[in-house]
Amino acid sequence: MSRIPLTPVVNALPSTVPFVGPEALERQRGVAFKARLGANESGFGPSPRVIKAIERAAVDVWKYCDPENYDLKQVLARHHGVDPENIAVGEGIDALFGYAVRMFVEPGITVATSLGAYPTFNFHVNGYGGRLVTTPYQDDREDPGALLDLAMRETARLIFFANPDNPMGSWWSADAVANLIGNIPETALLILDEAYGEFAPQGTLPPLDMDNPRLLRFRTFSKAYGLAGARIGYVIGEAGLVKCFDKVRNHFGVNRLAQEAALAALADQAYLGEVIARVGSARQRIAAIARQQGLKPLPSATNFVTIDCGRDGAYARRLLDALIAQGIFVRMPGVEPLNRCIRVSAAPDVELDLFAEALPQALRAVG
Amino acid sequence: MSRIPLTPVVNALPSTVPFVGPEALERQRGVAFKARLGANESGFGPSPRVIKAIERAAVDVWKYCDPENYDLKQVLARHHGVDPENIAVGEGIDALFGYAVRMFVEPGITVATSLGAYPTFNFHVNGYGGRLVTTPYQDDREDPGALLDLAMRETARLIFFANPDNPMGSWWSADAVANLIGNIPETALLILDEAYGEFAPQGTLPPLDMDNPRLLRFRTFSKAYGLAGARIGYVIGEAGLVKCFDKVRNHFGVNRLAQEAALAALADQAYLGEVIARVGSARQRIAAIARQQGLKPLPSATNFVTIDCGRDGAYARRLLDALIAQGIFVRMPGVEPLNRCIRVSAAPDVELDLFAEALPQALRAVG
Repeated sequence: MSRIPLTPVVNALPSTVPFVGPEALERQRGVAFKARLGANESGFGPSPRVIKAIERAAVDVWKYCDPENYDLKQVLARHHGVDPENIAVGEGIDALFGYAVRMFVEPGITVATSLGAYPTFNFHVNGYGGRLVTTPYQDDREDPGALLDLAMRETARLIFFANPDNPMGSWWSADAVANLIGNIPETALLILDEAYGEFAPQGTLPPLDMDNPRLLRFRTFSKAYGLAGARIGYVIGEAGLVKCFDKVRNHFGVNRLAQEAALAALADQAYLGEVIARVGSARQRIAAIARQQGLKPLPSATNFVTIDCGRDGAYARRLLDALIAQGIFVRMPGVEPLNRCIRVSAAPDVELDLFAEALPQALRAVG
Repeated sequence: MSRIPLTPVVNALPSTVPFVGPEALERQRGVAFKARLGANESGFGPSPRVIKAIERAAVDVWKYCDPENYDLKQVLARHHGVDPENIAVGEGIDALFGYAVRMFVEPGITVATSLGAYPTFNFHVNGYGGRLVTTPYQDDREDPGALLDLAMRETARLIFFANPDNPMGSWWSADAVANLIGNIPETALLILDEAYGEFAPQGTLPPLDMDNPRLLRFRTFSKAYGLAGARIGYVIGEAGLVKCFDKVRNHFGVNRLAQEAALAALADQAYLGEVIARVGSARQRIAAIARQQGLKPLPSATNFVTIDCGRDGAYARRLLDALIAQGIFVRMPGVEPLNRCIRVSAAPDVELDLFAEALPQALRAVG
């Protein structure tokens, strides 16, 4: 019996799981990782109050979530000093990127990003048949000027920019980002990924401007709030633009436990402050461990440190594999010249001890 | 500043929250519902072991889920006697319907369903620019013969069929469904929604055939397993077809707590059996309550009873509003002639007591 045809756009996509999880590596190796430092999760975990909130909410898991995400939008609006109409909640930032891409991208539409920037965003652009154009990082930072030039030249409809950036940990000042926002071409909308925003120094995130219909700012509970496995994020923007998410989103898509967890997480800003401080210390420690082995840690405004291994991508890959062989889960950027680095997530000392122990051995192993 | 254009397909969609949740009604009324009987959730809740599993998993919520959903697919495969390659797991059946529609539907593609069948499936078809054609229910059942004729006549690429059916609770025998499957036109794929399958009598679900590349069967943990708020479902089908979900799905989309909950739910089949028995009793009780008031309960193979109120849609709507005014959340079908009915979910006796008390009052109120 013959298959029926997929749409041409979907047919052209690869049938793969593009992002290998640590669990898949553990199954290959037949043993669990000793330290989970590869996915920029928060090994510090969520607030104990969040865990209690999940435990409390478990008995209500038979109820569908509120499709309007009303309570969470109210609290987020107060938290950010905007209106609830400026916020759309989604089942993780990846799903929200998917919705945003779907809203604006179809075959023939161009999207501008940096070569080596967040791959899941690109996955969605490809997924809806868009055309990706890229400009390289400059000095391990995304290059706002080149990105604007590219977007102008190619009449891009979307521009992706992450501040702070993953996978390099670099960032721009709020002024530089405001300048980027002020110069968005008339034909484009800026997708501003601020997933790591909570970790950045004061003066990194530009003030929220809810009148700009060509800007969407994406936030997540996966990083600083320690809720990667809960799958919840949100987007902030001009009310009319944000309303368009209702056209395409999976209205009952955000799970009930995540909504309760997010409410509890927002209510415990003291814990958030502690995590940010602990992440700062962990960054220093990762940097020190790297330096001690003659490697060069890059400055970071995120919950990870990207370490320049000083040679090419093949060398960094061998080092990464040697770390993985020792039970240390780390990842690395995918493209040159960023792939001379490995990326290590901030984590509690017990895990960084293991990294400190494994790194010199891995370096010896790769020679 | 001007907006940038949405794609024509998305632009044509309404910016609404199409499915009003009970929470929205509670906010309007300013008071919580006394009985939640409108969304076919399981008021019996998940297994106590599932709740324990969620509580145990809460401390690990900082970790992303396994994007391959490996453990759950292994267990589901054993449960159904198929291979893991025959299963794709998703963030609820609605998300899986969305992926399936996206895979096959674009502007110019026709999809056949029954007039009044599952609206979220139609939401996705509209959302990807497909053209919906419908055939009416016959005697409150979907009409497989008419559906096949329609699909043939209109060269539909997808055919939606739910067995058992929502919103009517009706069902066809496994033989009738096997006949439908056997007669799928060469140009079409059957979307077989079996969300309520666990409640149906023996001989309702046709045997699994993993060689048919024109059939996808959708299951959920939201109904019998009591996990609506967790957002997890799966699709079963021919391996090559199922693999195509990897092209479009949000790979990290299924939350970690839901995966742990689903594993625990599958492991407690004794509890599932209890729930199914309790649902059976609850259906009988809802039917008796309806009959006592001179209304006609329809036969049901689901976890709800659809009650024929004996007049037109306007009357049923008034009755529904009167029940809601008394704090009883119920819903009703959206189109004629199905909308002469209201739909009441199976629930523990304490909630059905309230329904039994409210129904005669509501009937008096509407006259």
